[in-house]
Amino acid sequence: MTNDPLWKRIIAQKRQIRDRLLAPYLVHDVDGRLPRVDRVDERSRLDQEPKIQTITDIDNIVVLLDRLRKSEFTAEVVVQAYIKRAVVVHQLTNCLTEVMFEEALEQARQLDAEFQATGKLKGPLHGIAVTVKDQFNVKGIDTTLGYVGRSFDPANEDAVLVQLLRSMGAVIIAKSNLPQSIMWAETENPLWGLTTNPRNPEFTPGGSTGGESALLALHGSLVGFGTDIGGSTRIPQATIGLYGFKPSSGRLPYYGVPVSTEGQEHVPSSVGPQARDLSSICYISRLLADARPWDLDPRCVPLPWNEHAFREIQSRALVVGLILDDGVVRVHPPIARALEELSTALKNSGHEIVIWDTSDHQEYIELMDLYYTVDGAEDIRHDISQASEPMIPHVQQLVNRGKAISVWEYWQLNKRKVKLQKQYLDKWNSVRSPSGMKVDVLLSPTLPHTSVPHRKIRWVGYTKIWNLLDYSAITFPVDFVRAEQDYLPSDSAPYKPRNALDEWNWGLYDIEQVDGYPVNLQVIGKKLEEEKVLGATTAIENIWKNHVANSDR
Amino acid sequence: MTNDPLWKRIIAQKRQIRDRLLAPYLVHDVDGRLPRVDRVDERSRLDQEPKIQTITDIDNIVVLLDRLRKSEFTAEVVVQAYIKRAVVVHQLTNCLTEVMFEEALEQARQLDAEFQATGKLKGPLHGIAVTVKDQFNVKGIDTTLGYVGRSFDPANEDAVLVQLLRSMGAVIIAKSNLPQSIMWAETENPLWGLTTNPRNPEFTPGGSTGGESALLALHGSLVGFGTDIGGSTRIPQATIGLYGFKPSSGRLPYYGVPVSTEGQEHVPSSVGPQARDLSSICYISRLLADARPWDLDPRCVPLPWNEHAFREIQSRALVVGLILDDGVVRVHPPIARALEELSTALKNSGHEIVIWDTSDHQEYIELMDLYYTVDGAEDIRHDISQASEPMIPHVQQLVNRGKAISVWEYWQLNKRKVKLQKQYLDKWNSVRSPSGMKVDVLLSPTLPHTSVPHRKIRWVGYTKIWNLLDYSAITFPVDFVRAEQDYLPSDSAPYKPRNALDEWNWGLYDIEQVDGYPVNLQVIGKKLEEEKVLGATTAIENIWKNHVANSDR
Repeated sequence: MTNDPLWKRIIAQKRQIRDRLLAPYLVHDVDGRLPRVDRVDERSRLDQEPKIQTITDIDNIVVLLDRLRKSEFTAEVVVQAYIKRAVVVHQLTNCLTEVMFEEALEQARQLDAEFQATGKLKGPLHGIAVTVKDQFNVKGIDTTLGYVGRSFDPANEDAVLVQLLRSMGAVIIAKSNLPQSIMWAETENPLWGLTTNPRNPEFTPGGSTGGESALLALHGSLVGFGTDIGGSTRIPQATIGLYGFKPSSGRLPYYGVPVSTEGQEHVPSSVGPQARDLSSICYISRLLADARPWDLDPRCVPLPWNEHAFREIQSRALVVGLILDDGVVRVHPPIARALEELSTALKNSGHEIVIWDTSDHQEYIELMDLYYTVDGAEDIRHDISQASEPMIPHVQQLVNRGKAISVWEYWQLNKRKVKLQKQYLDKWNSVRSPSGMKVDVLLSPTLPHTSVPHRKIRWVGYTKIWNLLDYSAITFPVDFVRAEQDYLPSDSAPYKPRNALDEWNWGLYDIEQVDGYPVNLQVIGKKLEEEKVLGATTAIENIWKNHVANSDR
Repeated sequence: MTNDPLWKRIIAQKRQIRDRLLAPYLVHDVDGRLPRVDRVDERSRLDQEPKIQTITDIDNIVVLLDRLRKSEFTAEVVVQAYIKRAVVVHQLTNCLTEVMFEEALEQARQLDAEFQATGKLKGPLHGIAVTVKDQFNVKGIDTTLGYVGRSFDPANEDAVLVQLLRSMGAVIIAKSNLPQSIMWAETENPLWGLTTNPRNPEFTPGGSTGGESALLALHGSLVGFGTDIGGSTRIPQATIGLYGFKPSSGRLPYYGVPVSTEGQEHVPSSVGPQARDLSSICYISRLLADARPWDLDPRCVPLPWNEHAFREIQSRALVVGLILDDGVVRVHPPIARALEELSTALKNSGHEIVIWDTSDHQEYIELMDLYYTVDGAEDIRHDISQASEPMIPHVQQLVNRGKAISVWEYWQLNKRKVKLQKQYLDKWNSVRSPSGMKVDVLLSPTLPHTSVPHRKIRWVGYTKIWNLLDYSAITFPVDFVRAEQDYLPSDSAPYKPRNALDEWNWGLYDIEQVDGYPVNLQVIGKKLEEEKVLGATTAIENIWKNHVANSDR
């Protein structure tokens, strides 16, 4: 018998179970796979198995599906390929929590058998390997939310999202790591430990859906699903340079997805896909909207995919509201440069840019912050008390932050929120472009910095304001930090910070350290304008790619 | 100086202001206009002014609009007609609160001038007289909610609904009475007093939008707007035998409509129209959905009117789930008879009927009831404390009912709610008709009784369950109590009540007293299925009318 407290024994048991499932797939050359900034996915290569390498190097769902349809690969081989590569990714970044490899392979074999018998794919995600944040219920598997105290309590049924994915032929291979309580933009918890950035173990992969960013960057998954209440599908993808989408709440099904502060309806969390390419995000968003999630989740809105809105925005001059600065925390030079360069490219392609007024953003953030403590952290305490586990510092901070307020006081915050939502909507609708048109989407930073070391993310104001407004938003990669361009002007006076957070953020900028790291931006649309956001981002990305192809870099 | 407390002096002042505005229009034969059950609108006739009589006898918006378009009437004459008749209605029922006659006439004259200059109507509601519950903000006018303490605090701007109505040419002539706190199915408050049923001053007009039911029944308004969080647009119209519609929340704009327990988001109240005919309800619902309310109200869902859904349901065999009894409080004989007769008529017309299982309804009602006291009535106390006014007994009861719970406990109720919503959705989707089709809409009682004396409404379980589910629902008239048919079988054993409420309700049945009073039923559709509900009700009403025309009555 050990003298370890129960929570430690639970952790040991949980990890032992996971590691036993991982064991058959482990590689033994992890120490030789050194961190690298450029072409980071080469870290997880499986050169001895070229087929696996070929399969997992495909970034696009439709391309992979096409090869499954042509019987170039079986579903079993595809799933096995992703399992194998996911395990390497895990060895490099500690990204996996619950592992469903055997079930996934069994499901893949069934798909193959049906395909052989009928000649038809099961659906538009036949054999596609998917990973989900350790928050989506999968029948028979724990949903931990990074809490030790939620161990050994397997879900009775699949989350609605998982049901829909499976009904279309997708195969869930594993769940991925997230921070204890989920309420943080990084990825660490006492149960599963710390997940690291694929480019640098000293860096965070972002959070809260950080396990997915590690998996996607290193090709351990083709599509990941996360949730976003302040930036949690966007921040990790911005950190590793891929695509993370946050629809408005009510668009994708949340039923069967336990969450911290569950039951709060003031700023609903949203389910969203993450992927290595934009067309996969569009493809799966279209599929899910057309799968009538409102038949299975009472909170979903009956809005089928609006293909017209998706195409129309791609067929004409866009009007883009440009956010260069939220007025609270100024962005680092590479982000400012990318924003300016992209907006110039947009203008040169005949699109219109309007500088967006953000002088009201701080007010929105202040309200968001008040919401974080309305229950006096009773929800977190309740979960922590289950196993008396320690709190990570961020959670400890949350718990110490504020006293509970009364239900009536809470309603007064909601009144303020609706007023602010109205104010933003009126602002949006009142702005006109030089040619007199309304603004279609906003273009903005995702974070005020690129990748940063662990426990350094403090300002998520560029993402969480869209949660308060329940707008739709996506982060997408545009460039990389370029040391030769993104230096601070040496002749200027030292930076005068606006406030402590701004000072903190500015102090984080270390051009040597982040040279070559990805730079992402964000496109935002109004509430439930998912098609417009995805269509506009498609158009913007095309312009950016043309610009890059025609420039000297 | 009087010794009256402030609240009494405020009431005196408020009523004096109103009465001064009413004075020019008062009739002096009120005592001769005796209560009557049959053709109740004759009570408010203005026989000396045939044009007024003609105008206000029109039940349909489009018919009136057509006559305005043909210059048979000016907007000013129409508005004046409605003002005059509304004042008679007020003299008979005490239904008006805030009066905007002069502004309305001025607006009407402007409409006429523009029409004369351009030859074009301002919009699809040009010159249509509208009344609204004393809850919708109208710039420059108090919004009292039946609270003395909200007096002398005029709104800074129109509610979004009022803006939309006015932009289409509608003219708001007055606001109508509601219960103190709004949270009651009858209509009384210390500020404006008691509103009575047009058929009988001893009877309630229902509530909370009871002022509108009096106005519509006696032709003091053509369209009224109310709000509904437990039945408040449906109960009054069921009580007086007209049409009251409750869309799902987020369909029509609530911005600028103060409400009790404002800021709560657990069971959102809905804005809905009330009218004397169904096509007017459909007409105005279509207009409002197509007016893009989501551009003005951040809580609205971007759902334009779906004409296909409205027509499709009218073009084929319906599948109707039939609620004869919610298992808690049994309905009175005339309602049971009407339901049976209508469902037989539907079957005879080729539609399908499925008996609907309501064994779970009590569970939903229990949760609704828990929500009523989550703030320990702090919201009501706050309003009451403004003028230290007395509470009506119902409000006093609410205040005494329960202690506040914590925000976290409140969230646990929300979790329960979502689970119940899911359970109902799954039930709905699992039911199949004899021919294997899914259920389109439910047909149900609105109340377990027809009109009742004041302070007798206690069971609103047939309406409020749809608020918890956020489904769309409409009440519509089908028949009248028929003493010769609706008697209790004399040879049967005395009724064995299921519970105290059922006993109370059964005891209310007095066939002599209610002979000839209207019998309404309710059609319910799922969340945001407003077009389906209105289309199905149109089809059902046609079948009923045919049935009546071909039967012996």
